[in-house]
Amino acid sequence: MPKLRQDPTTGEWVIFATERSKRPHDLTRHVAPAKTDLEGTSCPFCPGNEAETPPAVLTIPETKGTDWEVRVVPNRFPAVSPTTPKKPKPMAGIFREVDSVGTQEVIIETPDHNQTLATMEARNVLNVLKAYRQRYSATSEDPRIKFVLIFKNHGESAGTSLSHSHSQLLASTVVPTDIERRFSVAKSYLGETGKCLYSKLVKEELKAKKRVISQSGNFLVFHPYASRFPFETWVAPMEQVRAFGAVSDAELEELAEVLKSALSSLRSSLEDPDYNLILHSGPVGKNAPPPSFWYFQIIPRLTKLAGFELGSGTTINTMLPEATATFMRKRR
Amino acid sequence: MPKLRQDPTTGEWVIFATERSKRPHDLTRHVAPAKTDLEGTSCPFCPGNEAETPPAVLTIPETKGTDWEVRVVPNRFPAVSPTTPKKPKPMAGIFREVDSVGTQEVIIETPDHNQTLATMEARNVLNVLKAYRQRYSATSEDPRIKFVLIFKNHGESAGTSLSHSHSQLLASTVVPTDIERRFSVAKSYLGETGKCLYSKLVKEELKAKKRVISQSGNFLVFHPYASRFPFETWVAPMEQVRAFGAVSDAELEELAEVLKSALSSLRSSLEDPDYNLILHSGPVGKNAPPPSFWYFQIIPRLTKLAGFELGSGTTINTMLPEATATFMRKRR
Repeated sequence: MPKLRQDPTTGEWVIFATERSKRPHDLTRHVAPAKTDLEGTSCPFCPGNEAETPPAVLTIPETKGTDWEVRVVPNRFPAVSPTTPKKPKPMAGIFREVDSVGTQEVIIETPDHNQTLATMEARNVLNVLKAYRQRYSATSEDPRIKFVLIFKNHGESAGTSLSHSHSQLLASTVVPTDIERRFSVAKSYLGETGKCLYSKLVKEELKAKKRVISQSGNFLVFHPYASRFPFETWVAPMEQVRAFGAVSDAELEELAEVLKSALSSLRSSLEDPDYNLILHSGPVGKNAPPPSFWYFQIIPRLTKLAGFELGSGTTINTMLPEATATFMRKRR
Repeated sequence: MPKLRQDPTTGEWVIFATERSKRPHDLTRHVAPAKTDLEGTSCPFCPGNEAETPPAVLTIPETKGTDWEVRVVPNRFPAVSPTTPKKPKPMAGIFREVDSVGTQEVIIETPDHNQTLATMEARNVLNVLKAYRQRYSATSEDPRIKFVLIFKNHGESAGTSLSHSHSQLLASTVVPTDIERRFSVAKSYLGETGKCLYSKLVKEELKAKKRVISQSGNFLVFHPYASRFPFETWVAPMEQVRAFGAVSDAELEELAEVLKSALSSLRSSLEDPDYNLILHSGPVGKNAPPPSFWYFQIIPRLTKLAGFELGSGTTINTMLPEATATFMRKRR
């Protein structure tokens, strides 16, 4: 069973998932990337190979055959386990270890091995978003779950090991320190002003204009003021009205167009860069404390995280979001 | 002048250093890595090319010629500026920007283009450590400086753009959020127990034994209990007696042997992996509040930081430090 160990110098938890890796003595020049998904000689995500993955927890449309458009399966090498944990071991001095409890799933975004979110039809992106919403809600319903992250690794330098387009969902009973900090900033802002920080932020970006890429009725696409990475892109609701799990079909349809367009623009302007797509959100569950918020962040992996970034937790960004947003607007 | 912008959702500062980069419309398939150091057609760090860099702030031994063993020069594309900042602009809504003030230097570790810390003689590593200590102390003396990070990027995936072996020092008036958190954990521990967290941690690792790689009189080399990365290695003082800037010559001599040996072992066991070396420390300066602490962290870049890591701030480690430490001990 995967374990969580707490770093005594930061309070941060590290997930140890050793079934995902080769053993140390199998190491060669370049260690194989962690098995973030499933492996096989043929592509296990292609239709016809359904038996190579665990049974689906969701298909869109509902089917037991090969005629699915989106298919969600449990991760075969999860960093979390759905099993109820045993009584935690007593702390050994300052060292604390607990079972890593939760759910990890793979969202196979298309039956077509060669499509990606940027190239598929908006209606297919909509199916992917529906799968996100459904699995986000379903995993959040477990009252033990406190944190759900949906993310996508596109390309090798973004950490993927399988090219067939897919995303992942990880739901955990433990809230990472960074996520706690983010929530606490939003909570303080709500307490002080009575307002939602994320709605305010989007309003300010809209007012400032120069970092905005595009705008639809309910969503803003922009390169945020304090972008950590060149071409970092946020796709955020104009107003934080509902938790991600409660977003309406109409909103999701609009979001599919907006997200596809943002990803297509980056693909054509930066020549199909590797990227990570992350669905950020506040606490999950029916009784989650306010404020609730969510947004998508796209991080093109154009630069390397070096010693300064790993040592300080901050980043040096070599491009102003005003400059990259202007560049993107001109390419439209 | 480089700027710091504060992320309103986390409180974290991002450094914008746009002189270090190409402009957006110069972008090609792969964006060039940020100029973390100096560029030229021939190697600007080789003896004879001293004019290609700004004048040295330190050479070991002291020389104006080409007979140096270590040479420290200001970074030509710094992410911080030594200039006194202008009065900060008023906040624009929730957006805050200040001048990025400080010092950034490059420590050229050897005149030999083909040597690295892992291959050079221990006496040359000692010279590098002496340069670290001297520049750490000198930059800390500026009462405005609150944070000094010395780091090294070895290899392309660790973020280096120049192969001649070098490290960097970045001193800033702003303390990154992660560093504040780390300090506050150590401060709480000191308050609660009267003891130094880092001395305690090293003592516990020594007692547990199974993650220890080697031990000298004053230093322990180990793979820490909550390693964030496979083969993450700490080289830490047994007792946190002095700030890094006040470490004695004898201790530095011992540290040179220990550090060289740790890097050589990783090099031979993992076939010269790309890595980052980071000197972590507590607050700097003569009047820095306790606790003071320091240690070296080596992060072999064997895996990619993917969407989960970028989205949550935590890491999934696929190898237990007990397993990697056993592997390293067997290779000695």
